Amino acid sequence: MYFDVASTAPLHPVARQALTAALDEGWADPARLYRSGRQARMLLDAARGTVAEVLGVRADEVSFTASGTQALHLGMLGALAGNRRRGAHLVHSAVEHSAVLHTAEQWERTPAGSGTGRVTVVPVDRLGRAAPADFAAALRPDTALAVLQSANHEVGTVQPVAEVAGVCGDVPLLVDAAQSAGRTAVPPGWSLLTASAHKWGGPAGVGVLVVRKGVRYASPLPADEREAGRVPGYVNVPAIVAAAASLRAVRAEAERENARLHRLVERIRTRVPQLVPEVEVVGDPVGRLPHLVTFSCLYVDGEVLLAELDRAGFAVSSGSSCTSSTLTPSHVLAAMGVLTEGNVRVSLPFDATEAQVERFLAVLPGIVAGVRAPLGLDLPAPAGSAPVTVRGTAPDAGEPDGEAAGDEAAGDETPVLDALVLDALGKRCPLPVIELARRIGEVPAGGTVAVLADDEAARLDIPAWCGMRGQEYLGEAPAAGYGGDRGVAYLVRRTA
Amino acid sequence: MYFDVASTAPLHPVARQALTAALDEGWADPARLYRSGRQARMLLDAARGTVAEVLGVRADEVSFTASGTQALHLGMLGALAGNRRRGAHLVHSAVEHSAVLHTAEQWERTPAGSGTGRVTVVPVDRLGRAAPADFAAALRPDTALAVLQSANHEVGTVQPVAEVAGVCGDVPLLVDAAQSAGRTAVPPGWSLLTASAHKWGGPAGVGVLVVRKGVRYASPLPADEREAGRVPGYVNVPAIVAAAASLRAVRAEAERENARLHRLVERIRTRVPQLVPEVEVVGDPVGRLPHLVTFSCLYVDGEVLLAELDRAGFAVSSGSSCTSSTLTPSHVLAAMGVLTEGNVRVSLPFDATEAQVERFLAVLPGIVAGVRAPLGLDLPAPAGSAPVTVRGTAPDAGEPDGEAAGDEAAGDETPVLDALVLDALGKRCPLPVIELARRIGEVPAGGTVAVLADDEAARLDIPAWCGMRGQEYLGEAPAAGYGGDRGVAYLVRRTA
Repeated sequence: MYFDVASTAPLHPVARQALTAALDEGWADPARLYRSGRQARMLLDAARGTVAEVLGVRADEVSFTASGTQALHLGMLGALAGNRRRGAHLVHSAVEHSAVLHTAEQWERTPAGSGTGRVTVVPVDRLGRAAPADFAAALRPDTALAVLQSANHEVGTVQPVAEVAGVCGDVPLLVDAAQSAGRTAVPPGWSLLTASAHKWGGPAGVGVLVVRKGVRYASPLPADEREAGRVPGYVNVPAIVAAAASLRAVRAEAERENARLHRLVERIRTRVPQLVPEVEVVGDPVGRLPHLVTFSCLYVDGEVLLAELDRAGFAVSSGSSCTSSTLTPSHVLAAMGVLTEGNVRVSLPFDATEAQVERFLAVLPGIVAGVRAPLGLDLPAPAGSAPVTVRGTAPDAGEPDGEAAGDEAAGDETPVLDALVLDALGKRCPLPVIELARRIGEVPAGGTVAVLADDEAARLDIPAWCGMRGQEYLGEAPAAGYGGDRGVAYLVRRTA
Repeated sequence: MYFDVASTAPLHPVARQALTAALDEGWADPARLYRSGRQARMLLDAARGTVAEVLGVRADEVSFTASGTQALHLGMLGALAGNRRRGAHLVHSAVEHSAVLHTAEQWERTPAGSGTGRVTVVPVDRLGRAAPADFAAALRPDTALAVLQSANHEVGTVQPVAEVAGVCGDVPLLVDAAQSAGRTAVPPGWSLLTASAHKWGGPAGVGVLVVRKGVRYASPLPADEREAGRVPGYVNVPAIVAAAASLRAVRAEAERENARLHRLVERIRTRVPQLVPEVEVVGDPVGRLPHLVTFSCLYVDGEVLLAELDRAGFAVSSGSSCTSSTLTPSHVLAAMGVLTEGNVRVSLPFDATEAQVERFLAVLPGIVAGVRAPLGLDLPAPAGSAPVTVRGTAPDAGEPDGEAAGDEAAGDETPVLDALVLDALGKRCPLPVIELARRIGEVPAGGTVAVLADDEAARLDIPAWCGMRGQEYLGEAPAAGYGGDRGVAYLVRRTA
């Protein structure tokens, strides 16, 4: 069961059919004037018309790129270059796709005017939503571009695009519609829009960049004459034809499918906290994508959980798709201030069935319990269900690699400043939180625990754990004060 | 009959088969750890291994891009950024692909060090070949990158890659192997190499960028973790699998096919001048690509010729593939100093037959004659054949639009400074040359004709015509001296 359509959707049958046909009919160079070239050009023009119609824009406003990432790079850098007379200030929300963040980081190192590019990041609330007022506050006289996604790719929260477009006024707003294109319409008011075909069931290799008439744009790459001078390189006609055909097909099914998937996701949102103890379902429960839900499980390593779910036949994702192979916690969850450990994103394809979702809900509790079992923690009962206590084997048996040694190291802890010090230096999350949960009972109510940790995720997960367990998070302190030679001491007061 | 494989090759059957299979087996995100993701990753790794093996490099030196153009952009800008300590000087030959020229033009406007990027263009000889000595002369202490194609895309001339690599020493050399990859091996000594899958029968949407171990490279785009940090964006696994499979297949057939196509092209090179009067076959007759030949026909508009050939069932190309929709003459032919008018590039696919080539040779003379007929010119017999005089209807009948009016304008000509002045202002090539050919007989031997023209191609075609017709080209003069209010006066002395 493939529940990771937010990473990439399986090829839509219509896309496959169109691709096969276009490999026969549209394989030639559309810049050529002979018959096969003219035919490719006709197919390309028709595909552009289809995409324009679905997105509600003019065909000459649509350019095809090689990926959603390329569309974001070109859209952002092209709009910044085209609007440099306004200034060199870029505004984006904290929960944009990593391609936006990477572009902004590069922009801050790019010579522009008298200095370099400048960037303001707009915060989000605990649901992952950027407030229009915060966008308004971030705008300056030298703001050349604002960027906001239509909906978040990790937690599904829908962003207030129309309202942000309103406060932007004549500052161009680029909307990253990668997660919503083909599913839901983007509210009007934006200047540039990007999307990615393989997210809606089209083939890989096709992104969309829409630049509305009158919006200033200057190609950031060495330009050629293709795609209105916006996207250099040979145009991939067969894939574009397939992308357009599937966009139209998906859009036609969307209303019915959205309602159905919305109910299935609602069921996951409701049932997971009933079935699994110590779970936080994140993202906006109301203003959300129909098909996507994310939750985090305390004391669980996300990669281990994903591997177990894979073994059980479920393909799901964790954290940000673009940073899953790094050790950095998801920047989206971090910006929301929610738990990052044991993170699972479920994104349902159009053909997901109720039976599949029920099967997922049936196996998930046992899998999470199995991953937690070796820890031997007493967990509270999940909300709204009979009390469940997960009991495992002896604390030290079957723990993740390095944990046994870590425990011995933790034996070194010295109660400095009346605190129990847990040395979790060198341990990756969720181990610091697991250590905290296991040992906090050793101090009396009112007592303090200092967790020494150098995994960045601890900065997010320890406060999140305190919130979930009703413990008081006191803040950070220099590790040296607690005998640590690196990292940070996270201070927790036991309240219960 | 498709004779334009240098623009794009038809999809190789092996590529189609591999693409279909990979759409089933390799559709998932190769960055994911679940089964379908791991499977996509395995296919991607295998494809990378195949491409590396065919190109004779290590797999971790190969990155996949979205096009050959993107590979050139990234390769050039990445190598320039990575080698900025050397300086900001770029060297490339005058006959590189337009993507190289565009990148160089942008580089000249890019802040680098205390100024901007600097560029030296290495000239080529009449065969289109860049001399290693000229590359050596262009190198400076601050040269950060040199760029040379393996073979020219318009005229097929093979460049002296090994020798240029030799003179480059430790200056990185990027080789654009778009026209030769899969057909012929690239000599060693280069630092970076680029190629494009749709030129060898792979699908569109796949380019190759090879960066040899130890070569400094810094991503010019906002980087992510894909493709060794060199190419951001979602990786198109199915297309890459198809590209690799077809590269291997093509390489296996290449030796036999190269010999066969070499003979067919030799036949075209020999026969066209025998069959068609006033034709110049351009490019190196010996050191050339096996499958590509270009010739130019005096007094012929290339687009008209192509349209007639298309009507006869032949898909061929003209001028630079990337500028065919602009009015600028091919920069390759211009750099070679050869005729640009009536330009036809024939590039044979692997399945081209002798019968197809014979059919082309059978119809070409009649088509060229038909295009020339309305001009009523007396043409010399083609070399090595019985004299052929192409005679048409009255000079003014059936001429291209605007020509009749132009003739009346030409009636205004005034013999200033003892010259016959032909006013071809506002007339597109080949009209100025046609006018010259038609009227030069009006001055006695030793007399001078001044052709007033504002089409840039006249600068190339009038000297080329003089060379072909044994007339003396005297050079350019300000138009004002000959009554022109714009353009240039091209001066020709009638010698025969």
